[in-house]
Amino acid sequence: MRSLNPATGEAIGVDFPRSSRAELEALADAAFDAIDFLADAPGAQIAGFLDDYAARLESDRDGLARLAHEETALPHAPRLSEVEFNRTTFQLREAARALRDESWREVASDAKNSLRSMRVPLGGAVVAIGPSNFPLAFNGVSGGDFCAAIAARNPVIAKAHPGHLNTTARLFAHCAAARDAAGLPKAAVQLFFDCAPEDGESLLAHAGVAALGFTGSRASGLRLKAACDRLGKPASLEMSSVNPVFVASAAATARAEAVAEAWTASVLLGGGQFCTKPGVLLVAGEDAAARVVARARELLSAAAPAVLLTAAIREHASRAIDALRAHGAVPVAGGAASGPGFRLAPTLFAVDAAFARAHRSEVFAEAFGPLGVVVAVEGDAQLVDFARALDGQLATTIVSDEGDAATRATLLGVLRFKAGRILDEAMPTGVAVSAAMVHGGPFPATGDGRHTAVGLPTAAVRFTKMLCLDRVR
Amino acid sequence: MRSLNPATGEAIGVDFPRSSRAELEALADAAFDAIDFLADAPGAQIAGFLDDYAARLESDRDGLARLAHEETALPHAPRLSEVEFNRTTFQLREAARALRDESWREVASDAKNSLRSMRVPLGGAVVAIGPSNFPLAFNGVSGGDFCAAIAARNPVIAKAHPGHLNTTARLFAHCAAARDAAGLPKAAVQLFFDCAPEDGESLLAHAGVAALGFTGSRASGLRLKAACDRLGKPASLEMSSVNPVFVASAAATARAEAVAEAWTASVLLGGGQFCTKPGVLLVAGEDAAARVVARARELLSAAAPAVLLTAAIREHASRAIDALRAHGAVPVAGGAASGPGFRLAPTLFAVDAAFARAHRSEVFAEAFGPLGVVVAVEGDAQLVDFARALDGQLATTIVSDEGDAATRATLLGVLRFKAGRILDEAMPTGVAVSAAMVHGGPFPATGDGRHTAVGLPTAAVRFTKMLCLDRVR
Repeated sequence: MRSLNPATGEAIGVDFPRSSRAELEALADAAFDAIDFLADAPGAQIAGFLDDYAARLESDRDGLARLAHEETALPHAPRLSEVEFNRTTFQLREAARALRDESWREVASDAKNSLRSMRVPLGGAVVAIGPSNFPLAFNGVSGGDFCAAIAARNPVIAKAHPGHLNTTARLFAHCAAARDAAGLPKAAVQLFFDCAPEDGESLLAHAGVAALGFTGSRASGLRLKAACDRLGKPASLEMSSVNPVFVASAAATARAEAVAEAWTASVLLGGGQFCTKPGVLLVAGEDAAARVVARARELLSAAAPAVLLTAAIREHASRAIDALRAHGAVPVAGGAASGPGFRLAPTLFAVDAAFARAHRSEVFAEAFGPLGVVVAVEGDAQLVDFARALDGQLATTIVSDEGDAATRATLLGVLRFKAGRILDEAMPTGVAVSAAMVHGGPFPATGDGRHTAVGLPTAAVRFTKMLCLDRVR
Repeated sequence: MRSLNPATGEAIGVDFPRSSRAELEALADAAFDAIDFLADAPGAQIAGFLDDYAARLESDRDGLARLAHEETALPHAPRLSEVEFNRTTFQLREAARALRDESWREVASDAKNSLRSMRVPLGGAVVAIGPSNFPLAFNGVSGGDFCAAIAARNPVIAKAHPGHLNTTARLFAHCAAARDAAGLPKAAVQLFFDCAPEDGESLLAHAGVAALGFTGSRASGLRLKAACDRLGKPASLEMSSVNPVFVASAAATARAEAVAEAWTASVLLGGGQFCTKPGVLLVAGEDAAARVVARARELLSAAAPAVLLTAAIREHASRAIDALRAHGAVPVAGGAASGPGFRLAPTLFAVDAAFARAHRSEVFAEAFGPLGVVVAVEGDAQLVDFARALDGQLATTIVSDEGDAATRATLLGVLRFKAGRILDEAMPTGVAVSAAMVHGGPFPATGDGRHTAVGLPTAAVRFTKMLCLDRVR
């Protein structure tokens, strides 16, 4: 298997092997060498591994960012070499800190009843499957799930994303060097590049594997969720979200163009390939909505085609466009794929509320790419109705002015149960790494709205079990 | 549907209706009247309801305990009228406390990034299905899941257990009076008595229902888990556990008879119908095991048949006995069901390690009733092997002396990943209500080892979602 350069469609780097079922089983067997070691090692030893790993990455910052750029077409600077790179090393150091301060343990004690409770590792490896869109910060060998799993002292078996196999191999070389230098067992972090889906499920079923951390498409996520549910193993799944923006009527009238500009910029960011991209903008008031559409159309028509991460993402975006077309919607900007490589013109749909009600699942479907839908809603009451009908979301934004106070309050009351994160005014694409962040949300945005995938120590809790020592000497 | 007196098999009390699918839907529709109310009400108002409810229960202590005794055959005093009753009112008051101090919210803030995160209710009712064996303290209208769901400000739709319908109706009368007196909507707590299984699943699928809290058999739990997993709704499931006791060789040799006495008492407690009953006792050393069996046989043979909670429990116990017999094991005490009502003679099996390895699923199967299995294990190393092969458990006990220090340490290292709670020496049947308790454990003991069903505020977290307010005014 080889990565393709998304700007040209040409294969780059080396050919990576598909692991057989027996090879995957060997990884899971090996995990037993690391489970007790990591559970019992001094926190400083594992933390030292992560700190050293971060330092090694920094010594290869430019090479890694260039390679990631070549494989993903994401901008070299500042996106990869600064923003995402610094996020990655920050997360590694946050995980090191959690290992030193043990904040993820949530220790409780009750002297009267001689009880002590705490969180412990799961007793098996975490299979970490990262997404296409963050080759560094959500990579299975360096990203959020990796950090959370290691912070809670679990071995990691990572699967590389096919979109950035060479970057993953280069990250892993640094990881393995730091792991060995710190004296951790090789099985503390293992990597494979590819497998048959049914072999991946048999890996999950192995006794050496305790949990799954997955970020990716809804289709793959649901398949893996079903497998883990049958096994009774915890799965942390970040799957899909359209992150709608609700624009109340007074704000829409007062500043339709400014709203269009903020939204368009967020839709275009990273080629429209953030899981927090605001794919749908609901605007109360048909006149204001028409102004929003006019400005968004200007901006999107003027923007260059985005180079998408993979052929599959472009295909998925094209299918999403075709699904709206099939119901009679016509793009007011873009709509066409182009070459070389995997390009898509920035694309805008403008639909009315009746269309959005009739074709809710097509309008509110996640699609990576520079693609957005403006829904012209009759008024504030209908805005609230759309909020009530929403599926679980990672994030959602309310745009309101003073005159919209009642609508904003009602929307907040509805959306608090629908999304992991609510923003006033700001577009949802920025996700700060913080203990007060929630990158989560009810199904189907994730598998379980009780957890967050970003922010330590909270994200580490996903990969723990609770243990009470009851009158233990 | 009528409850039966387990001591006589005769129907008692009134005939309770089976709710139709439409009636269940009406409960879920009504929940929308309570979701926002409970989310926004002053904590003191909901806490006041719980405190008043506890006081109303106390004013009817004797009547409730007598009725529960009639329906369950559990001892009136001290079990029902004191121990379980006080546990129930304590839990209600702990939930009131959590509502006042909001400890379950797990608030985090990050001024630099303008983030505030917290837990919020789920935005839908929790369906609470309690078990047969705690008519008060785990009842859907008064027990642990009820308290946890209300503490996190969720409406509750409870299903009565068929074993104690009249007790549940009487509890609910107090609950409804307190609910109304506190000015809460009727839909804050609703009750139904019976439904067809497929209608129960359609209730779970309703938009007004957000989660399930279930305590009961593994078969029912797995069916409900599959339904909730498909829906992507969180389910808290406490299903089955055999809670094995590991007796290391020095302790076994030094005090075989005392171990047998402690274990037998725990097996007989409550008719052997605790989810933490230590169903299997593994003893290192064949001579010591023979002494344990001899003493346990004396005690169990001398004990009166236990009156079991329901005909179904006796049938399940009989099937468990038959399954061991079918492989050639012969009870060394008891083994027979008897009447009147639902009685079973205290029953002891004594098997060797080879038998337990060959028929692991039958030996390590949960069965309510005064039934236990002693496994004579060759030595300490084999004890550890059995620990490694264990499924997820609620609790497990290690019995060891000074000479067993190495074995104990190894067992602790293995069992920390297998059980929600580990005890030194003490039998697992007592579960203190404490913030440092873990009544949980990996699948299949529960649905998710990351949570506990006992102890506030931790148990309330099961019925929450995380929310981040990001730059919200």
